[in-house]
Amino acid sequence: MSEYTVADHLLDRLAEVGVRHLFGVPGDFTLGFLDHVEAHPLIEWVGCANELGAGYAADGYARLNGFAALSTTFGVGELSAINAVAGSFAEHVPVLHVVGAPTTATQAAGRATHHSLGDGDFAHFARMTAEVTAVQAVLSGADSAATSTAEIDRVITATRDRRLPGYLVIPADVSELAAERATGPLPEHPSITDPAVLDRFRSAVAERLASARSIAALADILVARLDAQDALHRLLSEGVRHATLLWGRRVVDESAAAYLGSYLGTASDTAVRTVIEDSDVLVMAGVQFTDLTSGFFSQHIDLGRTIDIRGESTRIADERFEPLAMADALDAVTAAVIDAHAHLQLVHPATPNVAAEAGREAALDARLSQATLWQQVTAFLRAGDTVLADQGTSFYGIAGHRLPHDVTLIGQPLWASIGFTLPALLGAALARPERRPVLLIGDGAAQLTIAELGTILRHRIPAIIVVVDNAGYAVERVIHGLQEEYNDIARWDWVALMRAMDPAGTAHGERVDSVGALAAALAAAREADGLTLIQAVTPAGDVPPVLRAVAAAAAAANRPAAATTTAR
Amino acid sequence: MSEYTVADHLLDRLAEVGVRHLFGVPGDFTLGFLDHVEAHPLIEWVGCANELGAGYAADGYARLNGFAALSTTFGVGELSAINAVAGSFAEHVPVLHVVGAPTTATQAAGRATHHSLGDGDFAHFARMTAEVTAVQAVLSGADSAATSTAEIDRVITATRDRRLPGYLVIPADVSELAAERATGPLPEHPSITDPAVLDRFRSAVAERLASARSIAALADILVARLDAQDALHRLLSEGVRHATLLWGRRVVDESAAAYLGSYLGTASDTAVRTVIEDSDVLVMAGVQFTDLTSGFFSQHIDLGRTIDIRGESTRIADERFEPLAMADALDAVTAAVIDAHAHLQLVHPATPNVAAEAGREAALDARLSQATLWQQVTAFLRAGDTVLADQGTSFYGIAGHRLPHDVTLIGQPLWASIGFTLPALLGAALARPERRPVLLIGDGAAQLTIAELGTILRHRIPAIIVVVDNAGYAVERVIHGLQEEYNDIARWDWVALMRAMDPAGTAHGERVDSVGALAAALAAAREADGLTLIQAVTPAGDVPPVLRAVAAAAAAANRPAAATTTAR
Repeated sequence: MSEYTVADHLLDRLAEVGVRHLFGVPGDFTLGFLDHVEAHPLIEWVGCANELGAGYAADGYARLNGFAALSTTFGVGELSAINAVAGSFAEHVPVLHVVGAPTTATQAAGRATHHSLGDGDFAHFARMTAEVTAVQAVLSGADSAATSTAEIDRVITATRDRRLPGYLVIPADVSELAAERATGPLPEHPSITDPAVLDRFRSAVAERLASARSIAALADILVARLDAQDALHRLLSEGVRHATLLWGRRVVDESAAAYLGSYLGTASDTAVRTVIEDSDVLVMAGVQFTDLTSGFFSQHIDLGRTIDIRGESTRIADERFEPLAMADALDAVTAAVIDAHAHLQLVHPATPNVAAEAGREAALDARLSQATLWQQVTAFLRAGDTVLADQGTSFYGIAGHRLPHDVTLIGQPLWASIGFTLPALLGAALARPERRPVLLIGDGAAQLTIAELGTILRHRIPAIIVVVDNAGYAVERVIHGLQEEYNDIARWDWVALMRAMDPAGTAHGERVDSVGALAAALAAAREADGLTLIQAVTPAGDVPPVLRAVAAAAAAANRPAAATTTAR
Repeated sequence: MSEYTVADHLLDRLAEVGVRHLFGVPGDFTLGFLDHVEAHPLIEWVGCANELGAGYAADGYARLNGFAALSTTFGVGELSAINAVAGSFAEHVPVLHVVGAPTTATQAAGRATHHSLGDGDFAHFARMTAEVTAVQAVLSGADSAATSTAEIDRVITATRDRRLPGYLVIPADVSELAAERATGPLPEHPSITDPAVLDRFRSAVAERLASARSIAALADILVARLDAQDALHRLLSEGVRHATLLWGRRVVDESAAAYLGSYLGTASDTAVRTVIEDSDVLVMAGVQFTDLTSGFFSQHIDLGRTIDIRGESTRIADERFEPLAMADALDAVTAAVIDAHAHLQLVHPATPNVAAEAGREAALDARLSQATLWQQVTAFLRAGDTVLADQGTSFYGIAGHRLPHDVTLIGQPLWASIGFTLPALLGAALARPERRPVLLIGDGAAQLTIAELGTILRHRIPAIIVVVDNAGYAVERVIHGLQEEYNDIARWDWVALMRAMDPAGTAHGERVDSVGALAAALAAAREADGLTLIQAVTPAGDVPPVLRAVAAAAAAANRPAAATTTAR
């Protein structure tokens, strides 16, 4: 291990882009590489129970850290993780998937090697992964170490700059090739903005705002993914009334005076919908309407009144400005709003938030319902929490409630792979250990990825986990098959299960079915040092109102010959 | 539901090829289809905890039933299962993967639909799956119902005849299209054998045997996959001494007089190796040497003395006979052996098996070791058991012991995806409920797929499960990293975990660490009605001898610049 090798170069570059934890499952083609990980001064190995869990954990890490890495073995390992990688791709999360492969000699021999299809073709899985990653490299011992390190730099740089997953196959022999230490850092991400385009954009915005009386903003998750959150905050703090899609809740401060709520097309609150759809000018930042965040494409946005800011371009009505980075476009709009201050309806930051939730009191002995569950859970959140809400009852349950200042919400509404959030918690917690992770997940979803609860306990993550015990796939029941057996699941004792994964007894668990018991359990969890799992029992047929509206739209869309909605 | 639809046609065809259970996880794009499943008189829905588990369960079902079907949702569901489908492909297991997709209208609109990558391209996953399936069809509402039912017939027929996985995408609207009931059955699988080729083969075999004194046979798993097991038994019952590869153990009766043991190249017992490598004629039936079953390609087979029978062709030295079905080739060899009876060394079926295991007695209070564990477990097996041995300590642990008559062994030595056997047990048990399922699995492996233990309990499968609690990935430790942290895993209380998944208390569990306690627990499990989980504690560094030999070979193969072995 005294010699510097290609594996060491890979790890140093990962450390350079901020990676401090490597998620994965070992395999015999990766074990040599993992020796280098163990020896690396900055990167810690985080062994997971299975590869899908490791992939989700890496995704959760990247969402808060800006970059993550995942290590699996060839074939069996990488394919087990591929759903997680595809989710990272769909949701713009930069994760580098490093696959340990058979040696170059073994591959060249073309024999029936374990973890291969036995047909001598070792490229099947790289071709599969190319569909769900933005950049790929398959290293080979037939190339020089310098070629391999250059390929590593190319893949890491592209993963970082495109904010999409990358894929790197490193045969066991290539890991061990002696390599030169890099003489300089990775290339910086150059600004893409063309100054002339920016000038033209500034003029166009100023012209738009000159005649406007009202302005609103609608933001979504790409603002966070493209690191334009500071620029968005500068705009919003001028008093521009704003909403987000459900996906983008974490990009704004929901306790702000000018915050309206979530925009979900026809499923929005009227107050939100009116401002977003009827203002003279609407600034859209990083908005991607998906079926589940738009009430199945029921948004009504007049593009003639919209400044539509994307990652690398902006459109005002029919005029397109490109290349123009999101942050630059946002700053240009902010400057124009300041200039137009006198005639624009803006909200003074000190104004009390009219839309703030009225306090709701539920009787402590009342049986827990979806309504009281999410009310209690939201009221319990506080600044510094990272909330992970699984796509289903949990995501829609808190959709009806606003979040306190400095609460980061992680969901996955486009890829919508249920069970994602449980392993994602592991990654999110390791990325930002100073934040308290709070997981909201249904029993059906938790069964998909439960093995990673053991990893969370092993790493002594002080998570607060609410498992909604409602006997099945509630979101599916609402869409179709309310009483059907296929929406039933095996019934587990979740508290006992958690204890079985925690033989040392470091964690706490409680089953609650009343409002008061939930409130007490949450309060105790806040004070506890270790993990707390709360099994919250709610009636099987009960679902949050927002979910009911979205599920109805989903059912309509799945109906044969569903009319295509006419929104954009 | 009164109208006959494309979904009904699909289910009727699946029933026709012997499917009685459909494994999967529901999703909103599959719910309508699942209504047809619930209504079907012959097919039962088996909802699993997650899609990888469902895929493994379907694989286990197909290994005993000859055909299986798997239902998942588009994108997230199918990709979670794809490792299982790839394993079925590598190991020649006919599983049809039915994917419920968004409606034709939704796909045509090209919008950011959940479970898609958001780029409007709905074909990514079909392209990925084409790498690991033998036949595919993507149905569309733009086609007629007759086209869709014809496509279904094509895919099911090819899956059945090629004994490899198939892939069928059925959009939610296509499921509901009115269809005509089929007027006849699926086409039969035509015999591929050319009579002239068979005649030529008969002559060649007779000529070979005329001058031979000794004959031996080496069989492997493809004999079972290609339904040639009866023909093989006809040959072996003439007294031909034989061995199998570890993968093919289930194709012979290891209690037979002429059975030698397992052949693993240089890692074989000398007695086995001598007969297989030195007989005048060696009949190989369905043999595929893989790294893990050949001691990393250390077999020494003289092809000049070999009759090498494959699925559709046979080779004698340099002469090739094609097309020639395996069963026909085997029967031709049997006839020639009968003719050459007078001068061939054959074993009388009533001869006591000289290689039968000597009884070994271990002190009952001795601490359990890998040696005593597998000795006890093998001694406990009896006719009618289906044994699933996970690829690792378990598979190699029983490799050193012969199995009683009518014990079916399921392993996965080519794809070698650890954790496979736990969900595969669910499928194997449902396919052959009269057989007692016995699962042998390490703790590291069981963590990958533990969620399906809940499904096994939910279905009241009377499984006997031995979890080898040796604190990590033993097989990896032997290959590399004996003490390294990356081979450690989270420690669980397996008995408590099983109980948490069995709130009704129908199952039994025990932790054992001595020979006597294991023997008692196994005996009690045999008598119990329900499931029994035995957590068998063995020392962390201890591994079965066969595994040590194979792991050493694996480590050598992963070494940079490993010399390529010179076997075929």
